[in-house]
Amino acid sequence: MTKQWVYLFSAEKTEGNKDMKDLLGGKGANLAEMCSLKLAVPPGFTVTTEACLDYEKNEKAINQDVKAQVLKAIAEVEKLTGKKFGDNANPLLFSVRSGARASMPGMMDTVLNLGLNDQSVLGLAKLTNNERFAWDSYRRFIQMYANVVMDFNISLLEATMEDLKEARGVHDDTQLSAGDLKELVTVFKKIILEESGESFPTDPMEQLWLAIAAVFNSWGNPRAVKYREIYDIPHTWGTAVNVQSMVFGNMGDDCATGVCFTRDPSTGEAKFFGEYLINAQGEDVVAGIRTPQPINNFSKNDSNKNFKTLEEAMPKAFAELTEVYKKLEGHYKDMQDIEFTIENKKLYILQTRNGKRTAAAGIKIAVDLVSEGILTKQEALLRVNAEDLNQLLHPRLDPKATKKMIAKGLPASPGAGAGIIAFSSERAHTLAEEGKKVILVRQETSPEDIAGMVASQGILTARGGMTSHAAVVARGMGKPCVAGCSALMIDYAAGTLTVDGKRYKEGDSLTIDGGTGEVIEGIVPTIDAAITADFATFMQWSDEFRKLGVRTNADTPEDSKVAVKFGAEGIGLCRTEHMFFEKDRILAVREMIFANTLEDRKKALAKILPFQREDFVGIFSALNGLPVNIRLLDPPLHEFLPHTNEEKKELADSLGLDMKTIEHRGEQLHEFNPMLGHRGCRLGITFPEIYRMQVQAIAEAAVICTEKGMTVLPEIMIPLVAVEGELTILKEDAIAEVERVFKEKGKKVKYKVGTMIELPRAAIMGGQIAKHAEFFSFGTNDLTQTTFGLSRDDAGKFLPEYVNKTLVPTDPFVSIDQDGVGFLMKHAVTEGRKTNPDMHFGICGEHGGEPKSIEFCHKIGLDYVSCSPYRVPIARLAAAQAAIKNTK
Amino acid sequence: MTKQWVYLFSAEKTEGNKDMKDLLGGKGANLAEMCSLKLAVPPGFTVTTEACLDYEKNEKAINQDVKAQVLKAIAEVEKLTGKKFGDNANPLLFSVRSGARASMPGMMDTVLNLGLNDQSVLGLAKLTNNERFAWDSYRRFIQMYANVVMDFNISLLEATMEDLKEARGVHDDTQLSAGDLKELVTVFKKIILEESGESFPTDPMEQLWLAIAAVFNSWGNPRAVKYREIYDIPHTWGTAVNVQSMVFGNMGDDCATGVCFTRDPSTGEAKFFGEYLINAQGEDVVAGIRTPQPINNFSKNDSNKNFKTLEEAMPKAFAELTEVYKKLEGHYKDMQDIEFTIENKKLYILQTRNGKRTAAAGIKIAVDLVSEGILTKQEALLRVNAEDLNQLLHPRLDPKATKKMIAKGLPASPGAGAGIIAFSSERAHTLAEEGKKVILVRQETSPEDIAGMVASQGILTARGGMTSHAAVVARGMGKPCVAGCSALMIDYAAGTLTVDGKRYKEGDSLTIDGGTGEVIEGIVPTIDAAITADFATFMQWSDEFRKLGVRTNADTPEDSKVAVKFGAEGIGLCRTEHMFFEKDRILAVREMIFANTLEDRKKALAKILPFQREDFVGIFSALNGLPVNIRLLDPPLHEFLPHTNEEKKELADSLGLDMKTIEHRGEQLHEFNPMLGHRGCRLGITFPEIYRMQVQAIAEAAVICTEKGMTVLPEIMIPLVAVEGELTILKEDAIAEVERVFKEKGKKVKYKVGTMIELPRAAIMGGQIAKHAEFFSFGTNDLTQTTFGLSRDDAGKFLPEYVNKTLVPTDPFVSIDQDGVGFLMKHAVTEGRKTNPDMHFGICGEHGGEPKSIEFCHKIGLDYVSCSPYRVPIARLAAAQAAIKNTK
Repeated sequence: MTKQWVYLFSAEKTEGNKDMKDLLGGKGANLAEMCSLKLAVPPGFTVTTEACLDYEKNEKAINQDVKAQVLKAIAEVEKLTGKKFGDNANPLLFSVRSGARASMPGMMDTVLNLGLNDQSVLGLAKLTNNERFAWDSYRRFIQMYANVVMDFNISLLEATMEDLKEARGVHDDTQLSAGDLKELVTVFKKIILEESGESFPTDPMEQLWLAIAAVFNSWGNPRAVKYREIYDIPHTWGTAVNVQSMVFGNMGDDCATGVCFTRDPSTGEAKFFGEYLINAQGEDVVAGIRTPQPINNFSKNDSNKNFKTLEEAMPKAFAELTEVYKKLEGHYKDMQDIEFTIENKKLYILQTRNGKRTAAAGIKIAVDLVSEGILTKQEALLRVNAEDLNQLLHPRLDPKATKKMIAKGLPASPGAGAGIIAFSSERAHTLAEEGKKVILVRQETSPEDIAGMVASQGILTARGGMTSHAAVVARGMGKPCVAGCSALMIDYAAGTLTVDGKRYKEGDSLTIDGGTGEVIEGIVPTIDAAITADFATFMQWSDEFRKLGVRTNADTPEDSKVAVKFGAEGIGLCRTEHMFFEKDRILAVREMIFANTLEDRKKALAKILPFQREDFVGIFSALNGLPVNIRLLDPPLHEFLPHTNEEKKELADSLGLDMKTIEHRGEQLHEFNPMLGHRGCRLGITFPEIYRMQVQAIAEAAVICTEKGMTVLPEIMIPLVAVEGELTILKEDAIAEVERVFKEKGKKVKYKVGTMIELPRAAIMGGQIAKHAEFFSFGTNDLTQTTFGLSRDDAGKFLPEYVNKTLVPTDPFVSIDQDGVGFLMKHAVTEGRKTNPDMHFGICGEHGGEPKSIEFCHKIGLDYVSCSPYRVPIARLAAAQAAIKNTK
Repeated sequence: MTKQWVYLFSAEKTEGNKDMKDLLGGKGANLAEMCSLKLAVPPGFTVTTEACLDYEKNEKAINQDVKAQVLKAIAEVEKLTGKKFGDNANPLLFSVRSGARASMPGMMDTVLNLGLNDQSVLGLAKLTNNERFAWDSYRRFIQMYANVVMDFNISLLEATMEDLKEARGVHDDTQLSAGDLKELVTVFKKIILEESGESFPTDPMEQLWLAIAAVFNSWGNPRAVKYREIYDIPHTWGTAVNVQSMVFGNMGDDCATGVCFTRDPSTGEAKFFGEYLINAQGEDVVAGIRTPQPINNFSKNDSNKNFKTLEEAMPKAFAELTEVYKKLEGHYKDMQDIEFTIENKKLYILQTRNGKRTAAAGIKIAVDLVSEGILTKQEALLRVNAEDLNQLLHPRLDPKATKKMIAKGLPASPGAGAGIIAFSSERAHTLAEEGKKVILVRQETSPEDIAGMVASQGILTARGGMTSHAAVVARGMGKPCVAGCSALMIDYAAGTLTVDGKRYKEGDSLTIDGGTGEVIEGIVPTIDAAITADFATFMQWSDEFRKLGVRTNADTPEDSKVAVKFGAEGIGLCRTEHMFFEKDRILAVREMIFANTLEDRKKALAKILPFQREDFVGIFSALNGLPVNIRLLDPPLHEFLPHTNEEKKELADSLGLDMKTIEHRGEQLHEFNPMLGHRGCRLGITFPEIYRMQVQAIAEAAVICTEKGMTVLPEIMIPLVAVEGELTILKEDAIAEVERVFKEKGKKVKYKVGTMIELPRAAIMGGQIAKHAEFFSFGTNDLTQTTFGLSRDDAGKFLPEYVNKTLVPTDPFVSIDQDGVGFLMKHAVTEGRKTNPDMHFGICGEHGGEPKSIEFCHKIGLDYVSCSPYRVPIARLAAAQAAIKNTK
């Protein structure tokens, strides 16, 4: 028996279900599921993802088995609809859509009205008694087909249509007559033949095969590849093809097409929300060419409040839709994003899927679904993508700041963004690479703009609604977006944006507030995100389930406070070198570096001591009782040297040295590979007085805070240990210094001494080193650099190419390389626990805030992760998800 | 029962034996052994190394048990000798010497005649009826004791004695009268009291305790520490103390003292060899103050040929000595270094040990001992320190070169050395650090000069014989040495060396030939070492036993030929980048770097292709049939950029670019950590055309050589692989290119493709990577750098301190870090063999020529090691020794 390549879906007979996403894609699986639920789904069939992979393997040819099964499926659909594919009098028309395992909005291409040609268009006109509709459908088909299947540059066709509209003096497509559209069809076909040398195919079967092939091909188009890279979707999944009999929202004023969400995708409120267009086809809503109408009062906003709602215009269809959405949400136990078409007042459901939402909405929905008894806490926790919390945690516009609002659009994706204007994806990308913050300003966005959107702080569009491409994608990315801001006059050619007569150019500053839709001139100051009750509940649930502790990497009392507010349970990494750079102490640091004798060096260190002590008092106070892991000086000394001639001169004058000496010391300290140089505990070994000063500052600060009645738990971390002896010597030295201070002050405070595991050798020797450490903290940034032999500062020249070519599954500096770096971590944990069962294990590399890495840390049994303050909630949720996924 | 801290040795009662070196030290164990052999050894006792360690642990106090056992041992010796320690009439006198587990010549301090004071010196004079002898002994004792035990600067005493000799108009110490010596004793004691504030101790027991403590202390003196570092002797061994009743070589003209070797230590010839002095004490021979006399005709040389031999002067003692040396060599099965004293014509043996020898002598002795049936081949192979072969393998003076010999000294250590003159150890060291080649020129050397000797190309002394400090140490180091060159007039203060009226200053060039004793003006060209028949035999035995293959690292046909001559079985690493630097191609390389398009890059590469092909033809021809492992381009491109302004200008003119562009490209290519940058296979991934050109050159060269009738076995090595995909892509690419060439030329040649394992991740993923490789070659230089996170170029600032503080047992760039780097190697071998049982494993880091690392490679089951051409014989022997030691 041959493999089943094609699966039928219809109310009468359905071969798939919602759990078959791998084979049928998300769209195909849900179409089958909806058929089983007896919803009004136009019948059709799905060609499997396996057929796509087979096509690719088969040198881009559809195999004969697939073809035979497609023909058989067409015959079944003909039976169900009573129409005939390729018939001139009663033509069965198809939509052809891609559908991959994961939702990839706008990434894959769609063709509607397939099956039309010069003969069947006449039959359709006659059958529907609607000539204009028939020719409009044919015109749309040619445009879409030329674009998607023939890879034809359709701007020529669009321009022709615009010319005709101008000649007729009309603004809307709907104002063109049947005759106009007929004329357009003739011209379109002529242009296509002239420009491409190919006739537009007239045989419906040929149209279908080419369309299926085009969907398969589109899996590999650069936009799709780019999207998968951004969202980490394997290139090996392939896409299915859904071939579905057409229903028409553009057959007249008793027709419509729309998109709705079972809850508000921006806020998560349990209110039905959507947009629709009368007498239109599906792509009209998404493309943002006409501003869509609200389906109900709840869906009204400033730009659509004067339109009739669907509830008002077609109450019966709206009532049916209400019944359907409730059924679907209950069935899927999640907020649904539903596409529908109303053909001559009859409602058809074309698609349902779990709806994209903002992080805030995601949390509200999850919390609500638990209180509605639909989900368990664990299920709810798994429903929210931890990374998405990012958008909740970043600052909002300071409401007290004076701001010059210049326009208002739709609040399409919350959060505040500010930067300089860029009018194209390429420019946005280039400017961002130059280190600039950018706001991408477009008429409307399209999948070509993905890279520019990623590079931007926010997206501003002149057209399109809440479900437009810009809005949907921005929400997914957690970027602020203001959409459909019709006050904007954008002139790409001139590179200007005009609002109310005032002109802005590339490089001018703008701020947008995606939560309110405001567009503001200049850069507006921001304030921290407010934490909602739902968010607090959700985070509390995370804490119930997670096994990993969550700490933060913070070097200042301010950062520490933010982190504690976000739930940090201590500091996992406090870098002391940042303190050295501050204006009031860098001179003493340089004096120390230029000291010729131990005595002079100690004198300079004595000047730094009070500053360090004050720093630690500040941090201990901010953490009040939570552990504070302090890493002793790590960078090579040359990092502290002056760079500009001015600075050098200042230093020379201050130290009474000549410029030559300053230069000479710089040369002496120069390193070929500073990353592998004289740094970390190597400094501690050669200049023990530096670490001693730092340890003294820690101990004295601990005593001061304790005397004030605070609890203090300092952890002294020795960095860059490679050999056991480094730790034994420096630990002994640190303990001696601490005890000396305690004796002097007549006060004892609990403290720990441990080390960072950030070199392969340290991980390998974990069992030996653990004997002398009270904790290990994995410094996975450096551990990744040394394990790969890859300098993070230099990898930019080739690492992106490695990611593109999937030589590495993801950038190893973003997500832990579990095979390589992870092997060393596991080894260190296993061996370390053997020789020291009381050992405490943490991670303080940037991976400590990345969900996949956090799951890995959970699996290998670390005690905590540590990450930047704004990522603390992400880490808490990711840790809970790791625990839930891994308890079975 | 308390521990035994003291072991008696005497013909009557002996508690130790030769296998107790760990406890009694080499000297003590051999004294005990000789007593058991009933040789005439003056009785005494050994205080154990454990007592030394106890002393150190015990805050430098000798414990009461040790003291009690010493007192008991003294009583036993008193019984055996009939003398009494501390007696004024019949005093028992002692020599006190250190004796560690390994021989450390000149490192530890000795005191003779201990027990003398103002009373007993009179008793000794009366008893021996030799007043001059008694006062000379007392004078010597005060000098030695002040120096060694009291840490007194004895140059004051020496100057006083020189003044007295001048006043008396005499040249030799022996010409001073008893009265003179008595006067000296008085003055010496006065000077000591005045300068140090301490009286010279008069109580013999106090003298002894302080002397024992001084020996224990001397274990930690800087010279001893330095020596142990050079010779890799653990600091934890400690030293024993040998307290032996005195016999006197300075009692008159029927007395003598001497040192002899059972075979010639320079050549290994089976001829008895030695030097002695009449009426002298032991240190006179070694210190080189008087030129010693030959013990027999064979021991005569230019500077001593007119002296009487011991055979002539004291035939009976000589005959006894002959009997003794034969007995000892037969007993120890090795060439012995024997110290003797003749007191009133009676021969005493004071010490025996395996004699230090040149590498050439070592091999000859080993081969002879096998043919004499004394040793097995395996034992013989283990007798020679593989590292010592180094001195045989380096070039000698070109006999055809014109040379201006300015003086001739003793041929004290073979080999040729050339460099600029340095008159002190410090200067030698400093100049060497500046990259200069240095000849250390001294009156005589002392342990303080060790560092300078290490830093020099060769050592030239004006005084001292074949057994002088300079000669013994230089032979051990494998450095050329000309000793006792009395024609030299050295003026340290003026910094000049005058020979025959011509003056040489620091910085002037000299060449010495340690094989002939010649001192030559200027730098003389050298030629390769000739291989002796004994050497060939010895190497052949090595090959019989070793399991590891030995290849060489060579980039040119010339180097390859040297290596093959030394027994290399192929090339383990042929670096292609050195070829890029050659004058005739560097311009094309730079053109390639500056190419803006793929086409331009290919054009530039096409210019390099013929050169590369020619290089490979040359190397294949030199290797004729042996495998040649070629590493594709490894360094980052910026290494090939011009550095000087001149070069930049030349390049700009040649490429028609302006200087700005040249500078700009340099900035673009600059890397923060080049070691971890865009190099190795990362270049191959981003610029595949570079590797393709190299592979094309290899394939074409292979075809050319095959067509000439040669056998060729190229191995293409992809460097710096970190992830599996790098190897799969580049291997496929290389195979495609090779097959393309073979198809074009209509000829096929066998070849392999494999990779270097030089990053921790590659070793960790060994199992995965092995699936795509035909061989792994461990690049342990880079693997050490990344495993330790240690840049070899920058480590100079702290690594020496790490070695000094024994944070690392040895420099990990010299000998493989078996715990860390070795763990990764073992892992890669184990995992690699699992997925690819046919895998071939080698090593091409510099460790491949280091004996301890070679033993490690043997143990983990590598197939071959690869090293620099001159180290190939060392590797062959070390591999044999590893196999012999590890087959049980």
